[in-house]
Amino acid sequence: MDMVRNFHMAQGLGETSYAQNSPLQKEVIESVMDITLRSAMEACAAETVSIADLGCSSGRNTLSVVENVIRAVCERRREATQQLPEFMVFLNDLPSNDFNTLFSLVPEFVQKLKAEHDDGGGILVSVAGAPGNFYGRLFPSSSLHFITSFTSLHWLSQVPAGLLNNEESVNKGNIYMSPASPPLVATLYFERFQKDFNMFLRSRSQELVVGGKMVFSFIGRRSHDSHEKINECLLLEALEKSLSILVSQKLVTEEKLDSFNLPFYAPSTQELEDQVYREGSFTIDSMKQAHDWTIHEYAPKMLSNFSRAIIESFICHHFGEEIIEPLFETYTQLLCEKLVAREDIGWSKIIVVLCKSAAS
Amino acid sequence: MDMVRNFHMAQGLGETSYAQNSPLQKEVIESVMDITLRSAMEACAAETVSIADLGCSSGRNTLSVVENVIRAVCERRREATQQLPEFMVFLNDLPSNDFNTLFSLVPEFVQKLKAEHDDGGGILVSVAGAPGNFYGRLFPSSSLHFITSFTSLHWLSQVPAGLLNNEESVNKGNIYMSPASPPLVATLYFERFQKDFNMFLRSRSQELVVGGKMVFSFIGRRSHDSHEKINECLLLEALEKSLSILVSQKLVTEEKLDSFNLPFYAPSTQELEDQVYREGSFTIDSMKQAHDWTIHEYAPKMLSNFSRAIIESFICHHFGEEIIEPLFETYTQLLCEKLVAREDIGWSKIIVVLCKSAAS
Repeated sequence: MDMVRNFHMAQGLGETSYAQNSPLQKEVIESVMDITLRSAMEACAAETVSIADLGCSSGRNTLSVVENVIRAVCERRREATQQLPEFMVFLNDLPSNDFNTLFSLVPEFVQKLKAEHDDGGGILVSVAGAPGNFYGRLFPSSSLHFITSFTSLHWLSQVPAGLLNNEESVNKGNIYMSPASPPLVATLYFERFQKDFNMFLRSRSQELVVGGKMVFSFIGRRSHDSHEKINECLLLEALEKSLSILVSQKLVTEEKLDSFNLPFYAPSTQELEDQVYREGSFTIDSMKQAHDWTIHEYAPKMLSNFSRAIIESFICHHFGEEIIEPLFETYTQLLCEKLVAREDIGWSKIIVVLCKSAAS
Repeated sequence: MDMVRNFHMAQGLGETSYAQNSPLQKEVIESVMDITLRSAMEACAAETVSIADLGCSSGRNTLSVVENVIRAVCERRREATQQLPEFMVFLNDLPSNDFNTLFSLVPEFVQKLKAEHDDGGGILVSVAGAPGNFYGRLFPSSSLHFITSFTSLHWLSQVPAGLLNNEESVNKGNIYMSPASPPLVATLYFERFQKDFNMFLRSRSQELVVGGKMVFSFIGRRSHDSHEKINECLLLEALEKSLSILVSQKLVTEEKLDSFNLPFYAPSTQELEDQVYREGSFTIDSMKQAHDWTIHEYAPKMLSNFSRAIIESFICHHFGEEIIEPLFETYTQLLCEKLVAREDIGWSKIIVVLCKSAAS
């Protein structure tokens, strides 16, 4: 599947939309808010502050980050009795993202911020949507002061090419780098991650001013060993199992399942560090790993909807729309069983703050 | 109706979409391309060239302008053996515009331009959608080099408030500043135009760098006398008549028609000049008026679809969706009759090039 054209969170504001099904992402954002705001205050000293959120999707999460960043930067200026800056905000996602829904929230968002900071002339907040692939250049050189990206960078630019060898799958029965995958699969996923993440860093390095900062958080592995059983991927594990049940029910052919792989990779902190050092333009302000247990707090049906909002476009593209309902019914059932049976579910996130260094 | 929330060209790519029904706008753009490119080449000398198209809508027209501007600027640099610039392109329209459809065209657009200019590293073209009302600030101060706006500025920010006086219409039976309207209506429309256009100029003046240019073209009156019969508005005249036929058919109540007014104003060149001088930040590089006769070349059904793509959102909002089909059937019929009966139909457009002066 062509990620740039076809991958998007579920559109609109309806029951199965991403906008209504992203509380896990909201939690991630809230948990990293402090470090995000601290970094923003350090990075945003210009008269016109340009910030970008990469992989913004279409709900309120992205605007809530921006809102808090703007508030924090203004607060810092007031404390220093400096003039408030103007803000240029870029919200980036792939072109097939539902920007229409996102943009419908913008007037109220801008109005609210203006009203809050209306001491004198108010502040200027320009919001623009930047459709494009963040594994490549998105913005002019040295044009940004601060970049955020939450729960996006575990998505690769594409499924590793070698997973289908002359249409023969090397990852039969699995849909990601799962514990059951052969070692070659881990290698192919890792190589794709290396290429993508290097391209990501190189692009951002050109776009950020010296001293500009970047905060990102995404799903990571707890162990450096790529073959270790990855408890973090319960949601993917259940999806894999659900698809194989659909095969046994003759709703999906075995070949169709064998040729399906998600472009998903959860790196370890060590792998990330290696990439940052190798690329060479950034210093690491901070890198942390945290384990989230909140999955337990949601009903299986809700978790099922959360996953669906994210991966429906993949599933539809590969298997066809008709399997969506039976698949996610099976998936919900499996999640019920898994949530009862297991205690160690949850997922691990990595939080990184990078600073563009002068030397690059 | 709240213009910012509700006014938009017909969405998508279907039969009645704006994207499929904007050849008249395409003609306008083609007819002003030369002067647009000349102005762009003069204004875009920076390392990173920032341009904006205001009222871009959702079809290919807006991208075709940008494409030609980028090509012309690159050509000029090559002739002077200078390095090619990076381009930051903002496509602006109201938040309810169909940006999703527009963004689906962006990857191919960027790819094409990159391929054309791939001498060495290729060029960087960043495209962003800027949702917002151009009768107000959209971009940071001194951030743009070149602005275009085609077939948009005849739309006011809102229906003049005084047209409904204690819910009593002062423009009964008419839906715009039509030849049959009382003099007060012309005054109210003119006052709204003055306020809006002043706000437009003041906002752009802050956003453009000194020496930055702005090219815009929109429907204008041929005479300075606002009460003169305006042949240019055949399409609106026929719409007004169609609505009154629907009243006689009891499909629309008289009160509903009386309270409907379009936020449309076609200024004269004299009125425009006055506004530019009064605002004071711009010099007029050029101001021309031209009469277009191409309406004759289109079948009535097509003209009907063109109008529908533009004003459907107004009509739906005020009268309800159910009158759309009967209204535009009647409208098409009327256009048939009018196109046969009259020779002097067509419309007048004004083309203006302004340059941001140092003195402001």
